[in-house]
Amino acid sequence: MAAAAPPPPPTPAPVEALPKSTPAGHTLFSRIRLATPSDVPHIHKLVHQMAVFEHLTHQFAATESALSSTLFNSQAFHSFTIFILEVSPNPFPESTVNPLYKPKVQVLNLELPIEDPERERFKAEGDDVVVAGFVLFFPNYSTFLAKPGFYVEDLFVRECYRRKGFGKMLLSAVAKQAVEMGYGRVEWSVLDWNVNAIKFYEEMGAKILQEWRICRLTGEALEAYGPC
Amino acid sequence: MAAAAPPPPPTPAPVEALPKSTPAGHTLFSRIRLATPSDVPHIHKLVHQMAVFEHLTHQFAATESALSSTLFNSQAFHSFTIFILEVSPNPFPESTVNPLYKPKVQVLNLELPIEDPERERFKAEGDDVVVAGFVLFFPNYSTFLAKPGFYVEDLFVRECYRRKGFGKMLLSAVAKQAVEMGYGRVEWSVLDWNVNAIKFYEEMGAKILQEWRICRLTGEALEAYGPC
Repeated sequence: MAAAAPPPPPTPAPVEALPKSTPAGHTLFSRIRLATPSDVPHIHKLVHQMAVFEHLTHQFAATESALSSTLFNSQAFHSFTIFILEVSPNPFPESTVNPLYKPKVQVLNLELPIEDPERERFKAEGDDVVVAGFVLFFPNYSTFLAKPGFYVEDLFVRECYRRKGFGKMLLSAVAKQAVEMGYGRVEWSVLDWNVNAIKFYEEMGAKILQEWRICRLTGEALEAYGPC
Repeated sequence: MAAAAPPPPPTPAPVEALPKSTPAGHTLFSRIRLATPSDVPHIHKLVHQMAVFEHLTHQFAATESALSSTLFNSQAFHSFTIFILEVSPNPFPESTVNPLYKPKVQVLNLELPIEDPERERFKAEGDDVVVAGFVLFFPNYSTFLAKPGFYVEDLFVRECYRRKGFGKMLLSAVAKQAVEMGYGRVEWSVLDWNVNAIKFYEEMGAKILQEWRICRLTGEALEAYGPC
């Protein structure tokens, strides 16, 4: 995948295509793949941008080393799992076969190219590949179904890549994985005033559980339960 | 632990005691321990009682074999984990050492003995030991903290054992385990109209996240994401 490679046809046969824009538009290749420990610096920056977006930087205490020591300790899908979204103006090479997950590739045809002011900070493997977002999820369990499911803790797409369908691609990839594993549910949380997000999730088939509230025990209130 | 053993002193030194009732009250020993695959028949009955209690039997699809095949596949605390609450009129024997979890024993002094109409259905190991409840939890993850936590999916105490502090014991056992493992949070959900439960959880130090709503993708809406 050299930077000088000729531009590919707008919608190569073997990949699924999002709705086309103009035939003369700008082609952007996207790929969802399993994260590896070498992605931690990018994951750390993405989580920080998410904290800024949510006005929750006062809760942000993650470091790269804390992420490294708590993630990637179990086989993918059996514990905390991260999909990385990458984009490139050029086709992705045939991925080295990962027995756990075959990357999902999609091609977008955009009317205008995306200007990424942070492309240097988020450069991934290969000159033209940039990390654009991620989703972190892990198994949960329903005793009523006697089946595991997935809980999506974080779903984030960097600002300049929003409103292009990438959020749906990431969430769909988790849902697809759940179906393939025979799991019963995919769940996540949304702020009740975020009507655009709620509309988007409902269009994806989700139900909003209006009566349930999340309870959280943390900080000193949690520490009080520990050994004296 | 013979049934004819002399009654123990009301609050033996090595165990934590709940608030005492009358010195001449009825002593009940309780124990929280890790569940094993042999507990599945009791777990199945408890989950069904929980579905009845929540008026959600139409969602109840669990079978013993489905529970057996989806639980106990990973080391305790690293995936779906169940604590079983047992009670007995007699002291529990020194437990065989489980390197993963030392059972928590407490002694209650009750004004009146508890009449358990289902003691035969819930008999556990030993003639006098009865299963009274359970809690199912599993790891979750906070990227802001870069730390795992626990999510409590189910907390259930059989009707005749309620209002004795057992729910608090079970939830406290999960919180204590979280602290011992260096985890950052314990979370669970509550119905917004269940004011008694909310009061109880707040008294335990939990905050209710009023703005967040749970989204759920399940059934046909989820299956739609799978392979055609």
